[in-house]
Amino acid sequence: MADYRVPREDMQFVLQDVFQVDKDWAQFGELAELDIDTAVAIIDEGAKLAETLIAPNARAADEEGVSFDNGVVTTPKGYKENFKQLAEGGWVGVTANPEFGGMGLPKSVSAQYEEMLCAADISFSLYPGLTAGAIMTIDQHADESLKATYLEKMITGQWTGSMCLTEPHAGTDLGIIRSKAVPNDDGSFSISGTKIFITGGEHDLADNIIHLVLAKLPDAPAGSKGISLFLVPKFLVNVDGDIGERNGVHCGSIEHKMGIHASATCVLNFDGAKGWLVGQPHQGLPAMFTMMNYERLGVGIQGLGAAARSYQNALEYAQDRIQGRGAKATRELDKEADPLIVHGDVRRMLLTMKAFVEGGRAFSTYVGQQLDIAKYAQDPQQKARAEALVQLLTPVAKAFLTDTGFETTVIGQQVFGGHGFIREWGQEQLVRDARIAQIYEGTNGIQALDLLGRKVAGSRGELLKPLLEDIQALLAEPQAGLEKEYQQLAEATQLVGKVTKHVLERVTQDENIINSVAVEYLNLVGYVAFAYMWLRMAKVAQPLVDERPYLASKVKTAKFYMARILPRIHGLVGAIEDGSESLYKHEVGEF
Amino acid sequence: MADYRVPREDMQFVLQDVFQVDKDWAQFGELAELDIDTAVAIIDEGAKLAETLIAPNARAADEEGVSFDNGVVTTPKGYKENFKQLAEGGWVGVTANPEFGGMGLPKSVSAQYEEMLCAADISFSLYPGLTAGAIMTIDQHADESLKATYLEKMITGQWTGSMCLTEPHAGTDLGIIRSKAVPNDDGSFSISGTKIFITGGEHDLADNIIHLVLAKLPDAPAGSKGISLFLVPKFLVNVDGDIGERNGVHCGSIEHKMGIHASATCVLNFDGAKGWLVGQPHQGLPAMFTMMNYERLGVGIQGLGAAARSYQNALEYAQDRIQGRGAKATRELDKEADPLIVHGDVRRMLLTMKAFVEGGRAFSTYVGQQLDIAKYAQDPQQKARAEALVQLLTPVAKAFLTDTGFETTVIGQQVFGGHGFIREWGQEQLVRDARIAQIYEGTNGIQALDLLGRKVAGSRGELLKPLLEDIQALLAEPQAGLEKEYQQLAEATQLVGKVTKHVLERVTQDENIINSVAVEYLNLVGYVAFAYMWLRMAKVAQPLVDERPYLASKVKTAKFYMARILPRIHGLVGAIEDGSESLYKHEVGEF
Repeated sequence: MADYRVPREDMQFVLQDVFQVDKDWAQFGELAELDIDTAVAIIDEGAKLAETLIAPNARAADEEGVSFDNGVVTTPKGYKENFKQLAEGGWVGVTANPEFGGMGLPKSVSAQYEEMLCAADISFSLYPGLTAGAIMTIDQHADESLKATYLEKMITGQWTGSMCLTEPHAGTDLGIIRSKAVPNDDGSFSISGTKIFITGGEHDLADNIIHLVLAKLPDAPAGSKGISLFLVPKFLVNVDGDIGERNGVHCGSIEHKMGIHASATCVLNFDGAKGWLVGQPHQGLPAMFTMMNYERLGVGIQGLGAAARSYQNALEYAQDRIQGRGAKATRELDKEADPLIVHGDVRRMLLTMKAFVEGGRAFSTYVGQQLDIAKYAQDPQQKARAEALVQLLTPVAKAFLTDTGFETTVIGQQVFGGHGFIREWGQEQLVRDARIAQIYEGTNGIQALDLLGRKVAGSRGELLKPLLEDIQALLAEPQAGLEKEYQQLAEATQLVGKVTKHVLERVTQDENIINSVAVEYLNLVGYVAFAYMWLRMAKVAQPLVDERPYLASKVKTAKFYMARILPRIHGLVGAIEDGSESLYKHEVGEF
Repeated sequence: MADYRVPREDMQFVLQDVFQVDKDWAQFGELAELDIDTAVAIIDEGAKLAETLIAPNARAADEEGVSFDNGVVTTPKGYKENFKQLAEGGWVGVTANPEFGGMGLPKSVSAQYEEMLCAADISFSLYPGLTAGAIMTIDQHADESLKATYLEKMITGQWTGSMCLTEPHAGTDLGIIRSKAVPNDDGSFSISGTKIFITGGEHDLADNIIHLVLAKLPDAPAGSKGISLFLVPKFLVNVDGDIGERNGVHCGSIEHKMGIHASATCVLNFDGAKGWLVGQPHQGLPAMFTMMNYERLGVGIQGLGAAARSYQNALEYAQDRIQGRGAKATRELDKEADPLIVHGDVRRMLLTMKAFVEGGRAFSTYVGQQLDIAKYAQDPQQKARAEALVQLLTPVAKAFLTDTGFETTVIGQQVFGGHGFIREWGQEQLVRDARIAQIYEGTNGIQALDLLGRKVAGSRGELLKPLLEDIQALLAEPQAGLEKEYQQLAEATQLVGKVTKHVLERVTQDENIINSVAVEYLNLVGYVAFAYMWLRMAKVAQPLVDERPYLASKVKTAKFYMARILPRIHGLVGAIEDGSESLYKHEVGEF
């Protein structure tokens, strides 16, 4: 696999020129001391880790994979040392609370760090990634004593975290979990049950693993309103903060998977393990959901990272590999063939990848910016508006970044022809690793249901408004040379409004409609959001081209996206108009 | 993985009811004795092999893979015995010339056999599949002495075949191959060079391997007009037909790949190996292309087979797995949740799979029927018309069946949620195995170029006419209850005509246009061809529903396809209208 190079220039362009995140920071008390140069310097430190330590080890780690022997999980060569370096650099706590030693970086910046880590090695990224999710959950919902005991050690990466939700019979449907929590006399609980698909549930990278576990109390109401959240450490912690005796949680086996071979996906058996309640009884799901907005964007960024890496490799290959003759004007007659990049279809593939990668980077930064405003802004109206945008865009970020990410890695494999299918070049690993991101942390179908059902229909369309306003604000100031593209965005945005109205009108008569058109609806919103990203970038880039010639490509790629990718929405709109009509004609036995 | 069940009923419906292939046979001298009952009985014999021998071994074979040690390739456990049984049943020569012991079955029937073999195990299917391709090439182009020496032993499966085209620097672009053939005094040639990606180039299933090798004679003109075809056996054959001394061709290594782990993908080193010219000097490429129409349909069927298997598994899982609650009417309140199949989005996924699988089965049979008419018909006009359809539809069959096949396997994985990503259930293997079919035997981009450039533009649109006529013939007799769908097909077909005209008009001014829109164009033709398949099936099924209730699903799925899948063409048309415009704005260094 070719060396990975972090796209520092593009990250800075997006942060500083397009979204001007530093202007936000200046207004936020907690971030007032952060400036763009510092942020760029931090990104650069992370980039060195990703480029020189983590990426070079990814293919060997995939080949070796994790191994399991009698409850012990061993990670591939190099993982231990690399995790130690990452932890020592403070990267496990990159967004964590400074009160407990976290860096406290805004999400718009950490999104760049996450992208590079995922581009370098998704498997590796999951160990600190799940730990960061656990840190956030504990910080927001646990009592002071639990925070004091666990947070600092997790933020420094001495201990890691895991999230234990799924059970063999309960994945999407957490309401039917069977794990039980029985109160002990000392205020702790005794946790029993089997959890599956637990990422980083067991490994050899840290001295302790802090599991956050969903389970039911004896008096729990049925369904999803009766789920509580517990903190269950692998080793109990003594009063002095040192590690004590082994707790009753053990890894029964690990899964053999299509990809992310170096990530331990564990079956965990809780056998009267000692745990502590996090948050209120029966409020486990809402507690998990407060960190979901961060985590789901993070999973979206996994798709983006794999896509970005695949694009780099494909571009390099298409410039180096000579094969066939291009149109007359482009022929290099001193060679026996021309580079792949002269061919129209190869350009179509590369530009599709570029459009998804750079559009995705802008989109993840945009969502990150809204998360930051929602968290740090002092003006309640500004905060509420950002919260609404986050609500709306989180499922889009998770699903659309992973769907376009997967599509990008598949295209990146195609550019290599047969060489894309063999392991040596690394393109096939990116396909296998990216695939899981469409499935876990709520399948993309569930994300679509969340978007159209809970968010859009649930608010009678209100939650859509801030996004449409942002788009209108851009359209209100047209840009010379982009008139056609502005018109295309305006029409596409009208289509979103029209389709939304159509679905909302039918929702009372047709209880199946939401679930029947949700995926197409999410994709529609995704394509339009990316169109908005591309025109925002093009508008900012155009006047800067003389100064920074590489930005010429922004305007050109925006035109490509609008002409060649955005038209996909017409297929989606056609399908959405069918509603649930053609999905419910078949009896169950008639498929 | 669930047991594989050959969809016998649907195969017979397509052959007998929809395409009435037996009526063709009655008119063909060579096939006059074949009737539908015999064909069905033959299919049933093949089905038993696929269901009881080959499918049950596929997952273990994937885990074990092929191994390489010092030039020797060992296939997974069971492959040797299964290949022997297949060969003894006459299945290697299923379409081969009866003069040399072949079964001589028409392609419309063997397409069904190929589908089941690929559904059972693509890796395994490649050993007899490549052999069949080599048999056909030798039968059509080699002289009588070579035929007499090799064909019978290959048809009985005692010896297998391989096709040696690609070299490290030359994949798509065969004009630049470097392998050399120097004439010997005895009429044979001495072949030297390195070939890569040679499927079944070395293995332990047969006593000899007959390589068909592209190489250049000393006096060869440059480029693709200077390529000759040679037969190079692994072991030389004595005058008595027995195996003689080892020839100078050896396997240097095998590739480690994303999928088809049990298929040996070999580097072959030819070091002065003895070979014999097949066909005329410098006519190697045309000789290869006469069998390409068969082979490319065969690769398309690999995508179809994997898709069919994935659909079976996903349907079973969606009926068994309970998760979440459906709309009120469908709730099973005695259970803690409802089966997946009540959910609209799961139905969307299943019906998309079903539409691609059954539409693909009809399409591969339709193309097979045209291949049979082109081969066996006595009326020259009928023959010429079928040849034109074959020319047009071959690249569509290869690319569209593998693209929709891959999409189907990815959806089939999604239906399983996290369980689709782990190896145990087999859904992820189907994704990995199906992926290669989009790449080899001419990438799908190359197929698109063949369709739009060589076929459609090359004939100034003439080759498109027989397909449009077939569609018009269906539309001329509307069917009650399908009026809306007939209208949709009529409009989509008009769109094909309009877009074709548009491209043909621009082709003289814009030498990049073909390569810039070919992939979208192929997909457009594919979606419309599938729409035609679905309405042909629906029309035939509708009056038979009372008699055969399972056919009700045909009409319903046709409506689903027209409402939910066919609208994708509007996105494609939008992209095609852009021409090469947005692909050639970027300088090579500007991506």
